[in-house]
Amino acid sequence: MTLRLFVPFDLAAGPLTLGKEQSHYVANVMRAKPGEAVTLFNGRDGEWCGTLETVAKSAVVVALTSQTRPQTAEPDLWLLAAPIKKDCIDLVAEKATELGASRLWPVITRRTVTARVNTERLAAHMVEAAEQCERLTVPEVMEPQPLDKVLAGWDAARPLIFLDESGGGMPLVQVLADLSSGPLAVLVGPEGGFAPEERAVLARLPFARPVGLGPRILRAETAAIAALSVIQAVRGDWNRAPRG
Amino acid sequence: MTLRLFVPFDLAAGPLTLGKEQSHYVANVMRAKPGEAVTLFNGRDGEWCGTLETVAKSAVVVALTSQTRPQTAEPDLWLLAAPIKKDCIDLVAEKATELGASRLWPVITRRTVTARVNTERLAAHMVEAAEQCERLTVPEVMEPQPLDKVLAGWDAARPLIFLDESGGGMPLVQVLADLSSGPLAVLVGPEGGFAPEERAVLARLPFARPVGLGPRILRAETAAIAALSVIQAVRGDWNRAPRG
Repeated sequence: MTLRLFVPFDLAAGPLTLGKEQSHYVANVMRAKPGEAVTLFNGRDGEWCGTLETVAKSAVVVALTSQTRPQTAEPDLWLLAAPIKKDCIDLVAEKATELGASRLWPVITRRTVTARVNTERLAAHMVEAAEQCERLTVPEVMEPQPLDKVLAGWDAARPLIFLDESGGGMPLVQVLADLSSGPLAVLVGPEGGFAPEERAVLARLPFARPVGLGPRILRAETAAIAALSVIQAVRGDWNRAPRG
Repeated sequence: MTLRLFVPFDLAAGPLTLGKEQSHYVANVMRAKPGEAVTLFNGRDGEWCGTLETVAKSAVVVALTSQTRPQTAEPDLWLLAAPIKKDCIDLVAEKATELGASRLWPVITRRTVTARVNTERLAAHMVEAAEQCERLTVPEVMEPQPLDKVLAGWDAARPLIFLDESGGGMPLVQVLADLSSGPLAVLVGPEGGFAPEERAVLARLPFARPVGLGPRILRAETAAIAALSVIQAVRGDWNRAPRG
């Protein structure tokens, strides 16, 4: 397994010194040795390969040699998710990254019981997942906002698929067939679902599309993962092969 | 939240005594009280509602009143999965249940490193998930078998979609469009993927279809969950609403 790291720095041929925390990770956690292969990406300059030149506790230097992949366009797909308990939202953050979401936005709904969201921890999970799944970007993590504020500032050019566990929604593939390509967002509620008044508000919004995910009651994290999977398979980038 | 339990007994109007373990769960873990509503299913007789008549540590009696849902046909969808570490295969078992898989079959491949599979623990997770997601059945858990033995006894009337992380497969929705309705199975390899000789064997089997899940390298558990989601959305039962 080649070491693959997300870095904030610009990427170009030549030496690059990793930050303190990442140097510690490479030197002490991964126990990497000089001469080992490494791959870097930053979300802007594609993917670059190189070798570890010096490995010191606080400053690892990478000698970058060449670009292995150019930066490419990725689906513009947001996931808005009501915070759920720690293990479950961590799972959502990891899987949303693997499934190519471009943004994770915690939204506070009426029945949200987990008010505190550690966005730094979520971001760290997403960096790790992006490094492992060979993405060229890391999804953006937003600070939590109340659902009504998020909806008040919504750009109507981005359809919002909301996962309506009450059974009122249309099948997801049917809704996707009616949408043109372009920006998209998925909204998943907390374990207790949306409040009736929230569903009523959403139903009146021209950009919102109530969607059902079949006859079984999915947990919030399952609904999020399943919806992202279907969207990428049906109208996202699953027609591309790995490293393609 | 109404107590919802999977039981081995036949369901009909009248009193029904739960087994010892389940009685303990109802009395001591859920601390349920006589008169509380309860829903039972057994995978054969649909769903029945009733109330708790007597609650004792070792023998809880339910008075069943009426059938709330008839038993209905469900997608015949198997998941064959190489064992992966405990947390991940537990997750797969839970999510496969929510996503309506009818059978979970651990298969041992060349690169499988987790040889021991606790099928009893998996079955318990699946019962719990079925109770929570309002399924009318619990998926069958098979004893682990080597992949070559499973393939040797395969019924060619059941197409086998194998998730080929090497990039050689066709997009999942394209493969699904070419299949007629009926039995189906998905095969997911271990973290290290399939060995080249396994892929070669699979490629020669007339019932096997190599499938790719897009440009990102999905973890084994993500691939399993994502593939089941897409299958149910595109050709499974996601055109039905909850309790529909």
